[in-house]
Amino acid sequence: MRIALGVSYHGHAYDGWQSQPSGRTVQDRLERALTEFTALDKVSTLCAGRTDAGVHGLMQVVHFDTPVVRPDNAWVRGTNRFLPPDIAVQWAQRVPASFHARASARSRRYAYVLLESPVRPSIDHGQVGWVFRPLQLESMQQAAQALVGEHDFTSFRASACQAHSPVKLMQRIDITRRGAYWRFEFEASAFLHHMIRNIMGCLIAIGSGNRPVGWMAEVLAAKSRDAAAPTFSPDGLYFLGPVYDQSLGLPTRTPAFDWLP
Amino acid sequence: MRIALGVSYHGHAYDGWQSQPSGRTVQDRLERALTEFTALDKVSTLCAGRTDAGVHGLMQVVHFDTPVVRPDNAWVRGTNRFLPPDIAVQWAQRVPASFHARASARSRRYAYVLLESPVRPSIDHGQVGWVFRPLQLESMQQAAQALVGEHDFTSFRASACQAHSPVKLMQRIDITRRGAYWRFEFEASAFLHHMIRNIMGCLIAIGSGNRPVGWMAEVLAAKSRDAAAPTFSPDGLYFLGPVYDQSLGLPTRTPAFDWLP
Repeated sequence: MRIALGVSYHGHAYDGWQSQPSGRTVQDRLERALTEFTALDKVSTLCAGRTDAGVHGLMQVVHFDTPVVRPDNAWVRGTNRFLPPDIAVQWAQRVPASFHARASARSRRYAYVLLESPVRPSIDHGQVGWVFRPLQLESMQQAAQALVGEHDFTSFRASACQAHSPVKLMQRIDITRRGAYWRFEFEASAFLHHMIRNIMGCLIAIGSGNRPVGWMAEVLAAKSRDAAAPTFSPDGLYFLGPVYDQSLGLPTRTPAFDWLP
Repeated sequence: MRIALGVSYHGHAYDGWQSQPSGRTVQDRLERALTEFTALDKVSTLCAGRTDAGVHGLMQVVHFDTPVVRPDNAWVRGTNRFLPPDIAVQWAQRVPASFHARASARSRRYAYVLLESPVRPSIDHGQVGWVFRPLQLESMQQAAQALVGEHDFTSFRASACQAHSPVKLMQRIDITRRGAYWRFEFEASAFLHHMIRNIMGCLIAIGSGNRPVGWMAEVLAAKSRDAAAPTFSPDGLYFLGPVYDQSLGLPTRTPAFDWLP
């Protein structure tokens, strides 16, 4: 039987999502907890989107196959008993064998949270990016529009990226703020490695007046990583989760979505 | 010359505010940083309100006397260079010799943040209290009103409390929510040891329907620690700071105030 789980985690203490020999990744901890709960040899999961070291998950989705039969709620409570306090399964649901956490996703959503303050983060350390120069909303909104639509995002792609194609469909970039905290929300068919952190570097260069609005279109057109700003900090990046066909009836958010500005 | 500092910190990694032989307190880290920055033998600070282990500070205020003359901004940036990433000086200001961080405070403000969710915290681990039963706003608001005014708060006082008198003036208790997150804001002349965490235990017992609204007045009237609910978790408690006479011109908030729900 195939089970899907929604998982939230604070990424600061982990070497990213994907399993590593170190064992210090979110996938390692989740699979260990599932193995302990099911008392099986090994439970292997497949996720909707791998996150880098330090990146947070508000609703990662994984699937796995298991002979173990449990009520949905028992999967949540049972697995959480074996997880560290900064990782929690939010929901569990039986899914058809045709469901695939990555391949079934129509799009993915991420948020980047940024503190604008003369002083670096403290209480929110590890949970936000930081700029000390004031940012201008309008210039960032205009620049972001240059990225919406189907584009070759090579300029924002890390050299280690393993994606087949650099062409992705950016569906929207919404920029809002609550007091000193900016929130940038991205939805796209898929994201290249470091793509959002590289875009954030460019948006901030434009928002703080270091670069003109038109620079974003130039960077995009250059199709060269050298054209863009340096990769911005992982601290403020949150995977909001994949978007699936509504007919699957999977949750689209968790209570922790209300935590972010 | 007397200097006042506004300091914010994430309390999770520290044994509370007040200096301890362990050296793992916020005061220890702040004084070490001030000593390094000033290159003096030892800088001793006095704070507006000591916080317990795990409690956070959005705007602790301290004062200290020093022969060192620096622009206000240099105190902020210089001290922050020697502080760990979860503590930061937010502002510095020269104050009259008559100013005293604790004695000059007319009142103190705290916030308690609570996650209401079937699943325990994860992304917000260490930063919120947790209830899995839904809470009712109206019953908690009514119960909180029983505490507003001048009362003997013995029932909410920890046995280790060193205050001269259990009589304090509670000026207000405001309860709001943003999605799954509740925020309880308290302002009083002063607080007894564990007073807010003990009040929170009672408010939650009432809000979740385990106790009737009238129970809060009974607990208060009993003047006995045995009458109240168990002390609630420190994780969701934030010291918002002291309130001083406006004529002093000290900041009343920091950018991180916008971080909380």
